Formats: sequence, C-alpha cells, structure tokens
Amino acid sequence: MTSPFRFSELARSMQPSPIRELFPVIRQPGMISFAGGLPDPAAFPVAAFAECAEVLERDGREVLQYGASEGYPPLLEALLAMMSERLGFEVPPERLLVTSGSQQAVNLAARVLLDPGDVVVVEAPTYPGTIHCLRNAGARFATVPCDANGMVVEGLPEVVRRAEQATGRRAKLIYTVPDFSNPTGATMSLERRRRLVELAGELGVPILEDDPYGRLRYAGEPLPTLARLSGGAPHVIYASSFSKVLAPGVRVAWTVASPELVRAMVLMRQGEDLCTSTVTQALVAEYCRRGHLEGHMGTILSVYAVKCRAMQRSLERHLPAGAATWTEPSGGFFFWLELARGSSREVFDRAAARGVAFVPGGAFYPGPDEQVGEVLGGDRHARLCFTFADEAAIDEGCRRLGLVLEGP
Amino acid sequence: MTSPFRFSELARSMQPSPIRELFPVIRQPGMISFAGGLPDPAAFPVAAFAECAEVLERDGREVLQYGASEGYPPLLEALLAMMSERLGFEVPPERLLVTSGSQQAVNLAARVLLDPGDVVVVEAPTYPGTIHCLRNAGARFATVPCDANGMVVEGLPEVVRRAEQATGRRAKLIYTVPDFSNPTGATMSLERRRRLVELAGELGVPILEDDPYGRLRYAGEPLPTLARLSGGAPHVIYASSFSKVLAPGVRVAWTVASPELVRAMVLMRQGEDLCTSTVTQALVAEYCRRGHLEGHMGTILSVYAVKCRAMQRSLERHLPAGAATWTEPSGGFFFWLELARGSSREVFDRAAARGVAFVPGGAFYPGPDEQVGEVLGGDRHARLCFTFADEAAIDEGCRRLGLVLEGP
Repeated sequence: MTSPFRFSELARSMQPSPIRELFPVIRQPGMISFAGGLPDPAAFPVAAFAECAEVLERDGREVLQYGASEGYPPLLEALLAMMSERLGFEVPPERLLVTSGSQQAVNLAARVLLDPGDVVVVEAPTYPGTIHCLRNAGARFATVPCDANGMVVEGLPEVVRRAEQATGRRAKLIYTVPDFSNPTGATMSLERRRRLVELAGELGVPILEDDPYGRLRYAGEPLPTLARLSGGAPHVIYASSFSKVLAPGVRVAWTVASPELVRAMVLMRQGEDLCTSTVTQALVAEYCRRGHLEGHMGTILSVYAVKCRAMQRSLERHLPAGAATWTEPSGGFFFWLELARGSSREVFDRAAARGVAFVPGGAFYPGPDEQVGEVLGGDRHARLCFTFADEAAIDEGCRRLGLVLEGP
Repeated sequence: MTSPFRFSELARSMQPSPIRELFPVIRQPGMISFAGGLPDPAAFPVAAFAECAEVLERDGREVLQYGASEGYPPLLEALLAMMSERLGFEVPPERLLVTSGSQQAVNLAARVLLDPGDVVVVEAPTYPGTIHCLRNAGARFATVPCDANGMVVEGLPEVVRRAEQATGRRAKLIYTVPDFSNPTGATMSLERRRRLVELAGELGVPILEDDPYGRLRYAGEPLPTLARLSGGAPHVIYASSFSKVLAPGVRVAWTVASPELVRAMVLMRQGEDLCTSTVTQALVAEYCRRGHLEGHMGTILSVYAVKCRAMQRSLERHLPAGAATWTEPSGGFFFWLELARGSSREVFDRAAARGVAFVPGGAFYPGPDEQVGEVLGGDRHARLCFTFADEAAIDEGCRRLGLVLEGP
C-alpha cells in the first residue's frame, strides 16, 4: 500500500536527532551512560514536590482550566522576582513568557524572526536541540569558534560580515550559552560578555542568551548574564528553565524579552500549544512559594560538585597519558574531551562495546552544507555528562573509556 | 529606540486570535460569557485528581525526568486500551503519540505535511485554532460548507478539483470535527462519514479527524468515528484530548496515525517542545488507572446535558420570535445561532454593552484571501458555549441577548 502522505520539504529534510540515534546502544543493559544531559534522578526533590500537589486541591478550579498563553499568574510572580534579581533590572510582566521547556523559547524566537535562508550566528560546537529548531525554521548557520573562555567574540564581526557577503543577508540572531556551555562546559569571560553585548548592539543583531546552567556553578565567582550587562536592552533575549535546577519532567521554562517579541511569540504559540500546562506551572509556583528552590539548589550544587570532581579524578586516573585533553568545568553538566587521535564516532562504537557511552562531538555542529562562511566541525571530541551517573559508575565508566583509548 | 528585530514574514502576517481580541470585553465585571469554549470549572474532579499526585511521590524519579517524545509509558498503555475500544481496531504503540493539547497534533501534522501555498480542505465554519496553525504553515484553504449533518461531503470532490485547478496542487489534508463541531455543534451523519472516508481514499487526501467532543453526547446514538469506519487505514489521522473530558489545564492529548506520520511528528516536536510534561502525563495516567475517568464522564454528561437543555429553553423563552434560528445540539459545547438580521460583530458590541458575550461567526472562517475556489464566510452567526456558565447565568445571559435582538 502506498503512503497517503505527501510530506513537506521540511519533513523530508529533517535529520534524526544525533543523540536519539544513539539510544538503542545507550540503553543496552549494563551500559554506563555519560551520553544524555540528564539531571541526577536521586537528587530530585520528590517528596517536597509531591507535597506541592496541595495546590491542585486548593486552586483546582483555576489550575485545571485553560491558562493564559503568557503564563500562570502565581508562577509569573515568582519568576518576576527571580529575574529582577538575576538580571539586575526590574522585569515588567509584559517582558515575561512561560514556555514548555526553553527549547520552545528558542523555537518560538526562530519562528517569529527567521525566514528560510536567514542567517543565525551560533557558537560551534553548540546544543543540538537548538540546531534542530533553527534548521526547522530554514536557518543557515554562521559559526563562531569557541575556546576555554567560550565563544571567540573577537571574531564575531568578521563572521557576520562574511555571512552577509555570502548570502546578502545580515544575521537575524546570535545564539549563545554563556555559562557552562553545552557541550563544552566553558564559560564566557567577563570581557567577552561586555564585548558581545556591545557588538550585537552595533551590528543590530539580537542575542538569544540561553541560561539553563547559570546557577549551577561549583567553583569560582558568578559572572553577570548578558541581559544584566545590557541593562535590560531589547537586543538581549534571555531564556532559562526549571529543567536543570528542579526537574525536566515539569517542562516549565521562561523567557525575558522585549514586549514586542513576547507578543509575537505569544501569538505564534497560540497556533502551537496554546499555553504551558497550568497544572505543572502551579506545582512549580507552589514549590517556589514554599521556598524550596533555594534549599534544593544547595543540595544539587553539592551533589554535582562532588560528581564533577569525581569525573575529573577518574579521567585523570584512568585515561592513558596523552590520550585526551580537557578543562575541568566549574559548573553545568559536561566535560568536553578532545581526543588525541581517532574519530570520536569510531571511539564511541568501541566504547559502547565496552559498556560506556558518550556523545561524539560531531553532534554539536550544524552540517557543512548548512553553514555559511567558514565551516566548523569536528569529530575529535566527546561530551561526557557527569550529573546522571553515580560516583561508582562515573569511575567505572572512565575506567572502561581508558581501556578503549589505550588502543584497539 | 528602534527595534532590534527584523521579524519573519510569518510573524508579520500573523493575525491576532479573533477570540482573544474579545478578551478585554469578555472579562469586564458582571459580564456573562458564552464566548470561551471552556469546561465547567465546578465539574472538575478536583479532589480525585489531586489525590493522583501520589504518583509524583511513588514514581518521582521517572516522572520528574525527561520523557520520551512519544509519551509516558503508563499513559500510552491507558490510551492504547481506550483507543482500541473507540476506534475498533487494535492500535499498536507505534501509531500513538501524546501531544501537548490536540492543537499541537494539528500543528505537527501541518508542519510535516504542508509546504507554503499547499491546500487544506476544511469545513466552514471551523475551529479558529486550526485555522491559525494551518495558516502558520502557509496553507491555503479550500472550504466545504456545513449543514445540520456536518460537512457537506457530497461537494468535496468538486472543492478539491476546483482548488487543484486554481493552484495546481492536490489538497494535502482534510480537517474535520465530525462529532459536535466547533462552532456549529453539528454531527456528521453516518452516510456522510462513510462517504468521506471513501472519497478521501479515492482522492488520495488524508483526513485529520479531530475528536475532542465525541464522548460528550447528551442525546441520540453514538456514531462511529471516521477512524473506525476506515478500519484503521493510514489515510485517517485521529486526534483527541483530555481537555474537554477531564481538564484543559493538563495539556494532555494524543493522536493515532500511521507509524510513518508518527515518526515524522516525533522528529518535528524534538525541535519544538521535546515532549509533553511527564508530570501531567503521569497524573492523567494515574487518574485513568484508578478508574476515575468513566465515573467523571458520567458526571459531566449529566451536568452538560442539563446545561444544554437549559440554554435551549432560555433561548426559546427570551429570544424574540424570528430573531434567530438554531438546532439544539446533541452533544459538545456549543449552540450556533443564525441571526435573522444584523452583523454578528455589531450584535456582539450591543450584547457586550448589555453584559453578555458570545463569539461572532466571522471568527470561524479563514480570510477570503486565504481561500481558494468558492469563498465561504459569514457574519450572521453567534457561537454560544453552554458548558461554562451556571444555569442561572445561562438564563440571564439569554434574557440579555433577547433584549439586544429586540432592537437597538
């Protein structure tokens, strides 16, 4: 029987998620996975969160009804306070939008800003989910390399200029994860942050600052967000999420942007999912209202700091000298190893056979055909998530990886 | 200060939701609203639902984690059983997808099937949320008129032919709400259902059967879904939701479609919202597992049947003879009044001044410029939702409407 569907060009060109493709391997019994960027389920505040369900009884008639596309008022209230503190300026309600994960914020921004063929600047490597939704909006990627201090901002004007030369279009957006980047774990230096905010203003290209990990710092001093450095200027769009600091299963995130952008995103989402579940928004709002979030942050900061140190030690102990180099992250979820030799995809296969999984570096770059200007890519890196596995598994996983890197 | 944003063509062409535009008026103090299509909050199963939060404690580590894009396994299990019963064929897991509201199912289907300029067949009038997301996918609309037996299916081949003549493209999708249509409340006759399934197969155009209201029948005998009549053929895509039978605030809905379409929709959503909240999926699954849904259906069936009768009686009592005609619905949420004279938008303004709100008929048609072939539209109808207001408000609202229709 032939298919009754004539798929869209977009559907026909969609590429399977590079991480999802690894699932059948990652899920094999006995596998130690450093692959998924998952929080530690043992650290979830299960009891405290479950108790917040009292709000479902107390405010059931509002909570079970359709909610406003902008967000559920008690959650908005909590977020306005949190954001005014983190961003350093008074955030008015018309600049705030609750989203179903920050993936949705990126997707909505892409849908309201990008026409097919438009250019987006991304640091390379970057988060594959962002590549996926920018690609779905028809973006072409202008890539800026990264080093231990994050995006090499100094090269930005040249990247934008070259992309404009190649396409006739000025970039529409700059996407960055300044704190504890996914996948590199690197944090953008203060000097580069200032320069980025300034350059973006000069170039007339808004920044989307994705900040899921910013509060997960295990060492060193916090740096101001780009939004804070901009003083709330409209060209910095800020997005964050409860996924990493509370629980991904709630699918509650938010964005702070200029009112005109929020209005456009709200209108767009009314054709997509109408609103984020009021049930989960109410649970999260109640969790914040009871003052649990700060205590829980303390818990996971110490849990993750220990795991981060553990992976550092285990890598040092088990990896053969010279087989890989890396910088110990001071926050976030990831180690980013540069392998001295071999393709990371090929190392992945051998590692999986030994019972340890990671994400090969190629997953974090747009395809060569999607890039304009200088093409960045690479198959020499491995992303290792240290938050999900327990300490024993971290050590054993690194031991297995060490055996693989010793040679075939 | 000039805007740093250069919006996409899509964002620049987006039209505000016609219902949302009425909000400032609808929300005035003292207003009796028949406008929003909202369930009765007094009928929400607040206590039983809140008790299901035990699952957040019991299965917290899974429930708070990222979930599969296809859905949370215990909910999938409940849905497979429900669907095999309602659709009359064994639904395999690879045909099922949980979505964040059925709006998302329509949106995902639109994104994977439609290229800009493609043709979609809709019954006119139809649900504005669907118009919104089809429009966002760049659709042009081929409209089929409706009567008291739903879409006038007999005219479908001619509508498809004319649209193809006008655009050079065969329609990609037929969207219909066969049971208790939004806005007309009408139900498609059995004969038309059979003919529609047959014609769609012959024409090679898949059907999206949107079934949020099908189980909310207050009179008469249930009719088989299109999916059931097709015997599970891939050209019928089925979508339904917990919004109307349980609570919209959970944002949990689902679709049953062919495996290839489900795969494409899953891949698409990974660039949008990754997955539906596992928290709400787990709550809904637990609610079903405890056997609450059937009992609750019994409750709301009797509550809504009474309200439906109440609105029928109040309209008969208060509307001046000859001012409007309508058919009493046998299920769903809506009365659809045809006004004898005057524009419904103009009547809306006068009604709002008297303290009663409805949705003017124009909201339920694609714009004339978006239609191909015969252009359908109208400003002679009023959609009245009878499920939200209590009986006293229903009567008083109809009395106010009667005063308005008596003349200025």
